[in-house]
Amino acid sequence: MGSRLDHPSELWQAIREGKFRGTTAGLCPGYAQANLVILPKELAFDFLLFCQRNPKPCPVLDVIEPGSFRPKLAAPEADIRTDTPGYRVYRDGRLVDQPDSLLSYWRDDLVTFLLGCSFTFERALMENDIPIRHIEEKVTVPMYITSRECVPAGVFHGPLVVTMRPIPREKVVRAVQVTSRFPAVHGAPVQVGDPASLGIQDLGKPSFGDPVTVKPGEVPVFWACGVTPQAVAMHAQPALMITHAPGQMFVTTLKDEHLGVL
Amino acid sequence: MGSRLDHPSELWQAIREGKFRGTTAGLCPGYAQANLVILPKELAFDFLLFCQRNPKPCPVLDVIEPGSFRPKLAAPEADIRTDTPGYRVYRDGRLVDQPDSLLSYWRDDLVTFLLGCSFTFERALMENDIPIRHIEEKVTVPMYITSRECVPAGVFHGPLVVTMRPIPREKVVRAVQVTSRFPAVHGAPVQVGDPASLGIQDLGKPSFGDPVTVKPGEVPVFWACGVTPQAVAMHAQPALMITHAPGQMFVTTLKDEHLGVL
Repeated sequence: MGSRLDHPSELWQAIREGKFRGTTAGLCPGYAQANLVILPKELAFDFLLFCQRNPKPCPVLDVIEPGSFRPKLAAPEADIRTDTPGYRVYRDGRLVDQPDSLLSYWRDDLVTFLLGCSFTFERALMENDIPIRHIEEKVTVPMYITSRECVPAGVFHGPLVVTMRPIPREKVVRAVQVTSRFPAVHGAPVQVGDPASLGIQDLGKPSFGDPVTVKPGEVPVFWACGVTPQAVAMHAQPALMITHAPGQMFVTTLKDEHLGVL
Repeated sequence: MGSRLDHPSELWQAIREGKFRGTTAGLCPGYAQANLVILPKELAFDFLLFCQRNPKPCPVLDVIEPGSFRPKLAAPEADIRTDTPGYRVYRDGRLVDQPDSLLSYWRDDLVTFLLGCSFTFERALMENDIPIRHIEEKVTVPMYITSRECVPAGVFHGPLVVTMRPIPREKVVRAVQVTSRFPAVHGAPVQVGDPASLGIQDLGKPSFGDPVTVKPGEVPVFWACGVTPQAVAMHAQPALMITHAPGQMFVTTLKDEHLGVL
């Protein structure tokens, strides 16, 4: 690959030309990456309402009008059908395809939801010298299905899924402050230090992703996870649902820092 | 009136019994009051998306599922059809009735939007010893239609409407900080000190409400206004739209302070 893929437009181009199919972690530093959920229009109101009611797991960056594949606000030059490195297609809640492009799946009634992703707040944590264990250990962040129900909306309901990052005890307050600035990308933690209160029995056995080391003097801190809306949407068994492939996010031209409050 | 109407449930009861029809300003201190916009289901997705894209003028506190009149999240014991002191009914964008109750208008396809109201952040300003001129002068806050377009969504589009409060120069920073804490009720100002940049030619001639005195050493500060979504909705000329009457808000059981971030 000749390009360093520092700008989203370079990445989209490389994907369109079939030159890039990997994870987007670490690419295009400073630009917000997004979880993708694409649903038929008849489910769009219920799903948008679900996101509205559960902003921590489902922080909406943008919603594209029915049938349109241009993220007018989040990435006006991109094509949502071709510019994500990997897609997953579900029918009636079952994975049926993992295409490189959505050109053959596209329909005039599809509504695209772009939901914030933890890459933005992880970058802010690292800039504040707060370690990110799963990055250090080169594994996928551990995710846990909790005993806490999201606020339901229409046909959508299900448990909150969280990620866990071990934070040194003396940096917990700063970690809360730093991530509170970014409500558009999961925001403040949902819980500090008490896995049992979320129904998590064993930190070593995440529901998805990999376990990470919690060192002495570190506190497990839990943030709402973007897997929540995907799990909830899948559970409703829509006739058609399309998402990005894990780790292969859609990269927007929204600047991380512009998503910060205060 | 015997009761002091300190709690929303006392107010709802008084309204239901026909004992209260006035403005809700100053009632039930500490509880968030809401702008009401009720639309048929076929417009609900577009309107929710409009709110999502324009959170400053359209801060969503809650949306009630089609046909339901119980604000399950914002005021579970209330009935949205009877517990607001005044309603306005519009057909095709024209005011046709100002009923005391919506019992005869209710339909199974109506979706109720509860949008945050500036009463919450005005209270926070006053607690910080920042004067609210229109309250001191006992008039309605001055509102201005600006030259700034909201981000459109589906059939909904139109200009941003703002309120203006004169703030002593040395308290402007604090006023920005205090209101930034409340994104669910219009949040930070949209402009400080330059009416012309919003297309406002004469502060003495507001589009709605009353002019207020701007004293020497004071800066006009502009916040997004809840009249925006009503004006935008009306402009789309929906077959049916219902709102609260001006100043006669729906009072929720959400605590003002719980709407604060950080």
